[in-house]
Amino acid sequence: MAEAADAPAALSAPIKKRRRGRLTEARHEDKRTAILRTAAQLFAANGYEATSLDMIADALGMHKATLYHYVDSKESILYECLLKSFADLDTVMESMEDRAVPALARLRLFARSLASAQNSDFGRCLVLVGSRPLDMVPGGEVRKFQRRLDSTVRALVVEGIADGSIKPCNPGLVSAMLFGALNWVPRWFDSAGSLTLEQVVDAFLDMVVSGIAASRTT
Amino acid sequence: MAEAADAPAALSAPIKKRRRGRLTEARHEDKRTAILRTAAQLFAANGYEATSLDMIADALGMHKATLYHYVDSKESILYECLLKSFADLDTVMESMEDRAVPALARLRLFARSLASAQNSDFGRCLVLVGSRPLDMVPGGEVRKFQRRLDSTVRALVVEGIADGSIKPCNPGLVSAMLFGALNWVPRWFDSAGSLTLEQVVDAFLDMVVSGIAASRTT
Repeated sequence: MAEAADAPAALSAPIKKRRRGRLTEARHEDKRTAILRTAAQLFAANGYEATSLDMIADALGMHKATLYHYVDSKESILYECLLKSFADLDTVMESMEDRAVPALARLRLFARSLASAQNSDFGRCLVLVGSRPLDMVPGGEVRKFQRRLDSTVRALVVEGIADGSIKPCNPGLVSAMLFGALNWVPRWFDSAGSLTLEQVVDAFLDMVVSGIAASRTT
Repeated sequence: MAEAADAPAALSAPIKKRRRGRLTEARHEDKRTAILRTAAQLFAANGYEATSLDMIADALGMHKATLYHYVDSKESILYECLLKSFADLDTVMESMEDRAVPALARLRLFARSLASAQNSDFGRCLVLVGSRPLDMVPGGEVRKFQRRLDSTVRALVVEGIADGSIKPCNPGLVSAMLFGALNWVPRWFDSAGSLTLEQVVDAFLDMVVSGIAASRTT
């Protein structure tokens, strides 16, 4: 909005038009995101099948016909919700390659970022609904993304074993255990409860890293 | 069947009739179980919504009308599948009270039994479909059972902390992490793969108990 207010009065018509076009486009995109977010919340709360386009339109105080200006179908809404759930994690995965930070410390950072993404509106939709309803359309992106997440954790564990900070173990099983534990969180975590999400993730990481057994030397 | 073959020839008619009645009842029950098992497999593979009574009847080579001799509705099938998935675990939960076995050893036994139950036909249906489609009918049994499982693990951890074998920690988070990890297994475990289910569970327990960090003293 500041951009429009700052525009000089003598602005030529084509530039004005282009700016207005960009603003309209931004508003359109904001509206689309609002629709996707509301849909993600409803899918996560009621399930994909039990959520209709009418329910999504109702929740937004919008006519169903207007909804079709922004989205094509319920399937395409879910697909875009899943893609949005990935967007936050791209940067995190890249930062995992920074070997200046010890592997176990990076594993903890990764788990915190993953948990935070998974417990957002789009992340909850990914974890609680997933790509199964999309089996008829190309859902390969979702599986490809999940394989990248898995590879990131495995690589960290392999690196930790190589540098001696992690015991010899099966990296695939560390990944399977961590994803299982984190994927379950959106089903039980209550943000109004006594623990923050970060405390939950840190406790999980403490267990995976150090175990719960009392040390025999103390 | 041995029972019928052993029946003396001079058996009085009413007793014969009662026996035949019992056999018919057993056959009826076997057929019901076969129907529930097939339904559980289809629900787990395709999802609840995507599975129709026609598909269940087809998979059994049965007319849909015949199916109704054994079951009332798709909802009641799912409900009974979930109840069956619990049956195996009742004995296990009782055995967890035997204080002659150390708490950490019992936790491992519990995890093995839970994983084995969860990766059976009915268990996979519980984990992959759950009770959400049943929200309209009393699904409280499912939640009650899950709370009992959770309480069992918490009690073991509390006991371990009290006897000094487990470090002071949050028992609810140990339970949440373990159930998350185990509930995820039916989504990725391949019984034709290189690891047995018991090896997977043992590796999970090794991580939770001892951690993956290399010991600093070695």
